[in-house]
Parts: sequence; C-alpha cells; structure tokens
Amino acid sequence: MFREKIRVLDCTIRDGGLINNHAFDVEFVRKVYKAISSAGVDYMEMGYKNSKELFSPKEYGLWKFCDDDQIRQAIDGVKSNTKVSVMVDVGRVNIEDVKPKAESPVDMIRVASYVKDMDKAIFMVNHFADKGYETTINIMAISRDQGPELEEALHQIEEESKANVIYIVDSFGALYQEPVEHLVKLFKSIIKKREVGFHGHNHQQLAFGNTIEAIIHQANYLDGTVYGIGRAAGNCPLELLIGFLKNPKFDMRPILDLISHEFIPLRKKIEWGYIIPYAIAGMMNEHPR
Amino acid sequence: MFREKIRVLDCTIRDGGLINNHAFDVEFVRKVYKAISSAGVDYMEMGYKNSKELFSPKEYGLWKFCDDDQIRQAIDGVKSNTKVSVMVDVGRVNIEDVKPKAESPVDMIRVASYVKDMDKAIFMVNHFADKGYETTINIMAISRDQGPELEEALHQIEEESKANVIYIVDSFGALYQEPVEHLVKLFKSIIKKREVGFHGHNHQQLAFGNTIEAIIHQANYLDGTVYGIGRAAGNCPLELLIGFLKNPKFDMRPILDLISHEFIPLRKKIEWGYIIPYAIAGMMNEHPR
Repeated sequence: MFREKIRVLDCTIRDGGLINNHAFDVEFVRKVYKAISSAGVDYMEMGYKNSKELFSPKEYGLWKFCDDDQIRQAIDGVKSNTKVSVMVDVGRVNIEDVKPKAESPVDMIRVASYVKDMDKAIFMVNHFADKGYETTINIMAISRDQGPELEEALHQIEEESKANVIYIVDSFGALYQEPVEHLVKLFKSIIKKREVGFHGHNHQQLAFGNTIEAIIHQANYLDGTVYGIGRAAGNCPLELLIGFLKNPKFDMRPILDLISHEFIPLRKKIEWGYIIPYAIAGMMNEHPR
Repeated sequence: MFREKIRVLDCTIRDGGLINNHAFDVEFVRKVYKAISSAGVDYMEMGYKNSKELFSPKEYGLWKFCDDDQIRQAIDGVKSNTKVSVMVDVGRVNIEDVKPKAESPVDMIRVASYVKDMDKAIFMVNHFADKGYETTINIMAISRDQGPELEEALHQIEEESKANVIYIVDSFGALYQEPVEHLVKLFKSIIKKREVGFHGHNHQQLAFGNTIEAIIHQANYLDGTVYGIGRAAGNCPLELLIGFLKNPKFDMRPILDLISHEFIPLRKKIEWGYIIPYAIAGMMNEHPR
C-alpha cells in the first residue's frame, strides 16, 4: 500500500507514558527519537502538555508536561526530518503557556477532545494554529459518541476550525472493521478541507487491522507505537504498520533494533498487551479502567 | 454479525499441540472439550491422525495420532453438541486405519494440503466421505500458492471432490484484509456447492481481523483457538471470535474460565504470541521456521 499523502505518527512516549506516569528518562526518549528519525517516521509525539497547576511534577514524569527545554534535550543534535508533536487535553493546559511556534521545538499540537467538548477544542486548535503550529483534533471515545452529535461536531470543525487533521480515536478498542469503514467514510463526507486520521487500540487485537481498514478508506494520518506499547492492551505496532505501508521512505530496521535493545527489556518492567479483561472491555464498549 | 450458517471450529489442541508435540494429557483435553461444549462451539479438533509408522509415539503425544479410544476417553460422558474433528496431512496417514464413521467418535476429517498435492487430497477426502465423515480440504500456504494453479485446484475440487468445506489457510500469517477479500471472493466464484472456511495465523496480529474480513465476504467456517494458542504467533483467539459473532448459541464464559484456570498458567510453560521474528516472517511471506 503506497500513497504519497500518508503520514505516520509515532506516539510511543505519549501513549506508553500512560502506563508509567510518563516517567521515561531523557536518554530513553532520545534513543526512541533517534530510531524514529532513522526509520523516516513523519512525526513523533513526545507526551502531553499539561498544566503543572493541575498535575504535580512530583507525581508525574517529564513527558506529562513536555516543556520545550526538555524536548530540546531529547532531540538536539540528532539528525532528523521527523516533526515533533505534543498532545493536549481540553481543560488541562494553560494555552497562554504555549509559546509561538517560532520559539518552540514543537511542530504540531494535537487536541484530544470528546464530542461534547468540541467548542473548546476548536477554540484551542485555532489558538495554536494562530501561533503557527500544525494542529489536529483527536475525537476520543468514538465508539460511544456517534449519531447526530458527532455529525454536528464534524460540521462545526469543518466550518470553524483551523485543524489540519481530524482523528478517529477508538479509545475503548471496541471498533471492528465495518464500523471503521463507516466512520472514515462519514468523516470524509463532511471533512473535505483536511485529512482524516486513525488511532486504534488493541484490546481485541484489532489496532493494526483497523488501521489498515482506515487506510483502505483514505485515512492518511496513522498512529502507531513501538512494539504496540500503550495503556492497557496497547496500540497499533509501528513496525507492523511500516511493514504494511511498503513506502521506501521508511526503514524498519532502526525500530527493530530499538525493540530488541530497549522494549523487550522494558516489557519485563511495565506491562501492556492482550489480556482478557481489556478484551472484554473492548467487546462491551467500555473504558478499560 | 449474525448469520445462521456460520460454524466455529476450535483447534486448540491440534494447533496448540504443534508447540508441545501434542503432549497434552487426557484430563486437560477433557477440560477443553467440556468448556468448548458448554460454550456451544460447533466443532472441536482433537489433533492429527498420523501414521505411527511415520511418527514415534515415544516422541509425540497422544493427539498426534488421535486414536478413537483416546478421543473417547476425553469426551465420553460429557454433555455436548460439539462435533469432533481430526486433521490429516496428505501422505502422513494410513487411510485404511480410519474406521467407518459409524464406529468412530469422529464426525469430521479435515485434509490439509498444498495446492500441488490436490490430487491426493481429493482422493483422501473422497475416501473419508465414503466412510461417512464430513470432510474439508484445507489449502495451506495460500499466500504463496496463488495464480492459475490455485484456480485449477479449486475447479478440480468443485468437480471431483466430496468435501463439504474448502478452507483458506494463511499458514505464513502474511495476508492483509484485501488479499483475504480477494481470496474469499475467488473461492466463492469457483466453489459453488460447498462452504468456504478461513484459518488465520497471528504473526502480524491480523488473525482475528482477517477472520472478520473472511466473514464479511461470506466465509462460513471459522477456526479459532482458546487464548490464541498455536504454533509461533498463534491463531485467532476463540473468545474474540465468539464475542464478535454475537450469536446467542455461543456462551463465552466457559472459555474465559478455561483461560483463567488453564491457559494463563499454561503460557508460563509453553510460549506463543506476538514476537518480532514471526512478524517479519509474516511480512516476508515465509514459513515461521
């Protein structure tokens, strides 16, 4: 599957950090960034930008906050064409803390939002876009929040927002291929001026299969994580996604080396992957808490 | 997804036995049979029927041979509507050893064959059908053996064989959804008088997704194994398949209990699941040896 417009985003540190309160040390993140860069992956998401008034730096690691200086420590001096992304949740960031793009190592800010918070998400996205960032809106819990309210939100995004990409996020790992097809087609029928993205969760071992399904129906922004790391059952394995895309710009070997040297040892310390309680949560369309 | 014609076959012991030379004890197999029966699964495959002249009973466990008496020990007295299946490989069984169906606890014999051996497979299937068994032909290594030879084999099967079901077997775990769609449609365009089945392998975490894809395109016989046990990366997890099918005849709970009591401890002794070498073998369309 080769399509020039396809972009792959690695969210290893951001989603993997949900297992360990984002307590990866700088050296580890630098190793991941090197491998992601050598692999030719388009974006790497470093973590969340959260307000330190809401979350204590004593309880959470560096990548819960993603200070610009911290990101610089991880990436400076590495030869890379990979753009840097951070995620923000509606209501958890002080947007005035975010500097203009010209003064920051960050290229893209992704706003994660439920359908019900779309007004706020659009406001935030437009604020960041005006500061010079690429932006996305990632619509969470999509398997729950369907119907007229989703469609209304999509129309509002199309009319009012400056986001470059609108993501379908299968937060509960509840989607099968047919609902993915339905959702991508729905998004593309309303979102005409920007790209559609897909972020899968692996509760039912369908993160990769659903990502392929989204690609088939013209989603062009795809998320993956190294070795599928991520909360609960984890995410779409980046190495499988790159293998499927067969785009000569990607090189899987740095990812495989990284898995062998870092992620196989890491999984002995923190756990993710297929287990029955998450599978059932997926089948029941419930949050994996 | 509800379709009355769908049949689910559990091949936990047969495919799982490829990890441990089929050395499951009778009590374990009986527990699996009880759970499969309570779950309402249509078929359970007990193992291979191999010639003891080719494989030594000293090296291999009971389910490499599946003597009728052995099967009876595992199933007698269990309340069940689950039919019993065994698999045979072309050239590895003495067909004269197989008794008529009326004298055997076995209901179905599945003949596993490469495209090149289709003459022999059809001969065997017809022999077993004449003895009163339901029969299938499982075409292995399908991701390799495509093209005119596969089509010729399918025509020959349709014209000459008495098999009830023709299976697509993704031996290398190399198929993505689009090739699955292509293959099921190809099979159904030639195989008009019988059902099409699908057996996935999980090298690229696509066994379940590909099985769903096969169902979408009207494959009605689906294989799964408890907790995805099977050689290398394993198979389509039966519990996920049942959860997807949402057919009231199935009850997932006995399978979940079995996983909790037997399969989670078992996986500490023998290994299966997603690991990088198998993933690469899948991407490269190679046998996972």
